Amino acid sequence: MGRPLIGLLTDFGSRDYFVASLKGVILSINPEVNIIDLTHDIPDYNLMAAAVVLWACYKFFPAGTIFLAVVDPQVGTERRLLLARSEKYSFIAPDNGLLSMIFDEEKVELYEIKNKKYFLTEGRSTFEARDKMAPACAWLSLGLPVTELGAPVSSAEKINFQFPSIRGREVEGQIIYQDKFGNLFTNINQRQIADFLDKNSGANLVLLAGKKKITEMVSTYAQGSNEKPFFLINSLGLLEIAIGQASAAEQLGLGPGDTVVLKKQ
Amino acid sequence: MGRPLIGLLTDFGSRDYFVASLKGVILSINPEVNIIDLTHDIPDYNLMAAAVVLWACYKFFPAGTIFLAVVDPQVGTERRLLLARSEKYSFIAPDNGLLSMIFDEEKVELYEIKNKKYFLTEGRSTFEARDKMAPACAWLSLGLPVTELGAPVSSAEKINFQFPSIRGREVEGQIIYQDKFGNLFTNINQRQIADFLDKNSGANLVLLAGKKKITEMVSTYAQGSNEKPFFLINSLGLLEIAIGQASAAEQLGLGPGDTVVLKKQ
Amino acid sequence: MGRPLIGLLTDFGSRDYFVASLKGVILSINPEVNIIDLTHDIPDYNLMAAAVVLWACYKFFPAGTIFLAVVDPQVGTERRLLLARSEKYSFIAPDNGLLSMIFDEEKVELYEIKNKKYFLTEGRSTFEARDKMAPACAWLSLGLPVTELGAPVSSAEKINFQFPSIRGREVEGQIIYQDKFGNLFTNINQRQIADFLDKNSGANLVLLAGKKKITEMVSTYAQGSNEKPFFLINSLGLLEIAIGQASAAEQLGLGPGDTVVLKKQ
Repeated sequence: MGRPLIGLLTDFGSRDYFVASLKGVILSINPEVNIIDLTHDIPDYNLMAAAVVLWACYKFFPAGTIFLAVVDPQVGTERRLLLARSEKYSFIAPDNGLLSMIFDEEKVELYEIKNKKYFLTEGRSTFEARDKMAPACAWLSLGLPVTELGAPVSSAEKINFQFPSIRGREVEGQIIYQDKFGNLFTNINQRQIADFLDKNSGANLVLLAGKKKITEMVSTYAQGSNEKPFFLINSLGLLEIAIGQASAAEQLGLGPGDTVVLKKQ
Repeated sequence: MGRPLIGLLTDFGSRDYFVASLKGVILSINPEVNIIDLTHDIPDYNLMAAAVVLWACYKFFPAGTIFLAVVDPQVGTERRLLLARSEKYSFIAPDNGLLSMIFDEEKVELYEIKNKKYFLTEGRSTFEARDKMAPACAWLSLGLPVTELGAPVSSAEKINFQFPSIRGREVEGQIIYQDKFGNLFTNINQRQIADFLDKNSGANLVLLAGKKKITEMVSTYAQGSNEKPFFLINSLGLLEIAIGQASAAEQLGLGPGDTVVLKKQ
Repeated sequence: MGRPLIGLLTDFGSRDYFVASLKGVILSINPEVNIIDLTHDIPDYNLMAAAVVLWACYKFFPAGTIFLAVVDPQVGTERRLLLARSEKYSFIAPDNGLLSMIFDEEKVELYEIKNKKYFLTEGRSTFEARDKMAPACAWLSLGLPVTELGAPVSSAEKINFQFPSIRGREVEGQIIYQDKFGNLFTNINQRQIADFLDKNSGANLVLLAGKKKITEMVSTYAQGSNEKPFFLINSLGLLEIAIGQASAAEQLGLGPGDTVVLKKQ
């Protein structure tokens, strides 16, 4: 067992006092905690990107890790502060859908964080990550029972993901994420591709993305073209569109929310 | 008591060897120290932004924290290296005004850091953060007496802040900071607003900012408009101009240094 | 002795799940390790910049530090995963030249990392930093013998640096790095300049850079002009072109790869 771990994921950026304030608050309550920055560069207010990034990395962390995830356009309003506990992890976030992809993978117990005794301020706050969520994380890392922080709730907000629809010879999916290299992640996963290939044995696959028809499927980036988009199964098990050392998003003019269709050539 | 804490705040950015060098130097002297990045993305050479960010977060850190704050356009010249000690904290910075807002809040003892015995280099350096200030921090975190690092001095440089001037029915203030969301922080604080409302009871407030007259005052961002600028008391207790999920700085064409006037409608 | 240290240097950026995944994998294997971000903002796929930044900071870290350095356009192909061990440090990187400048300074033993027992995946991976290199780092930090991770190899890839050529009254060098301030680092070092001055005693130096003839040599940035480029010996001991509080790269239209000539006026 190492020191308790708190992983931070926000859209707070790196240039202001926001992230430092969270760290100060947490270390003032539990000086032994190990704070890990997951990322603070989620695009402003982008719940979908936050949900994908958290889902993409949380399961690599040790059991016991507490995640504080904050993209919170409704800060200071009546939306609840949520604590979701699975067998291995705890997640603290505003109740706005940020944890949607966690709910799909982990069996969680839900709590509303509301015991003012553990907050920095009794009243309203325009910075609840600092004043309420960070202290809750820190107290939790000290072993405070969750029931002391809040009360069980029966449900939480979810983002309405569009799941890929498989109809005969086509799989219709959606671009759900764009990474810093301009690669486009779809919500079509490797199992769905395997199923599709089973049903359409011997088929060559083609991916329709925007006005492009992408025919090259590779297994590593280096095998793909530096000029034309190709697709591959990425490190999350998702169908991804990429171009060697260039931005597929830019070249295709596509991004999160856009539709793609995988079909037999 | 946890491990000793050193908080870093610089304009060194994240892509070069600058920050890593500081960390290496500190850990080579005190491998047990916990290094916390406050931010390295202070705009280049911007002392005012550095002063605001440090002031905004330092008091959330545990007693004993040592802050190394470096924005240093005069690096390598005769400007002094400063150590300011308050009851709870130590601050190491060039003597160029960066600590101005700390001086307004904390009673400090001042020292000039100059004992070459603890520097990486005896002579001149174009990177004194690495060669002089980082080692000083690390030795301090090991418990070295401050008098061993340097000698007391009686004064330090200060940035000349313009404080809000209150005259009858108007408070004239200044924009002192712009955050990554484009929100504009003024130097008018909640106490001054409360005083002003006391003297002008029942008044509706209006804020003149550039060519705009801002009439909407809210208590959380989500209550404000997504089209028009509004103002609120932010998480630092300062009057702040914002727009819901957009940049007030961009829409108003204003930034740090610009004047605002709060008055009765 | 402090906790074991792992320093990370990548071109993964800060907004995606890449860096967080490495941290999670490492901490799951060795929860006691201290992970230090050197930088994740190496320009995409830029091996030369990665080589310079790693070289610029590694030697400030304590003995025993393990560096994981990943800029890896060939990820998933047959290029090897390398472990280079010097007396004080361990370096894990793809075998693509990233460690070139380390090889010039440190006597290293080379190993190919290939024991699948320690990988997260047996097969191919499009994210070998997470699936193979990070676990190797973590196991190494636990004291696993290098021979358990892989087998000795006799050579490694090197980037072909152009070394400065000294011919009588001229030293021809190359710009090898551009920092965030727009300063341009050349590969001409202080020893070569001293030698040149020895052979050309009393000479005033002039630096030809692009179409400019730079005549001002200073010892600190603050001594230089805010309008015209000057040169100095920087904190790495290299001849550097700068402008006070402005970008020399932009003003000169020069960058890494461009030639400079130092000569007698």
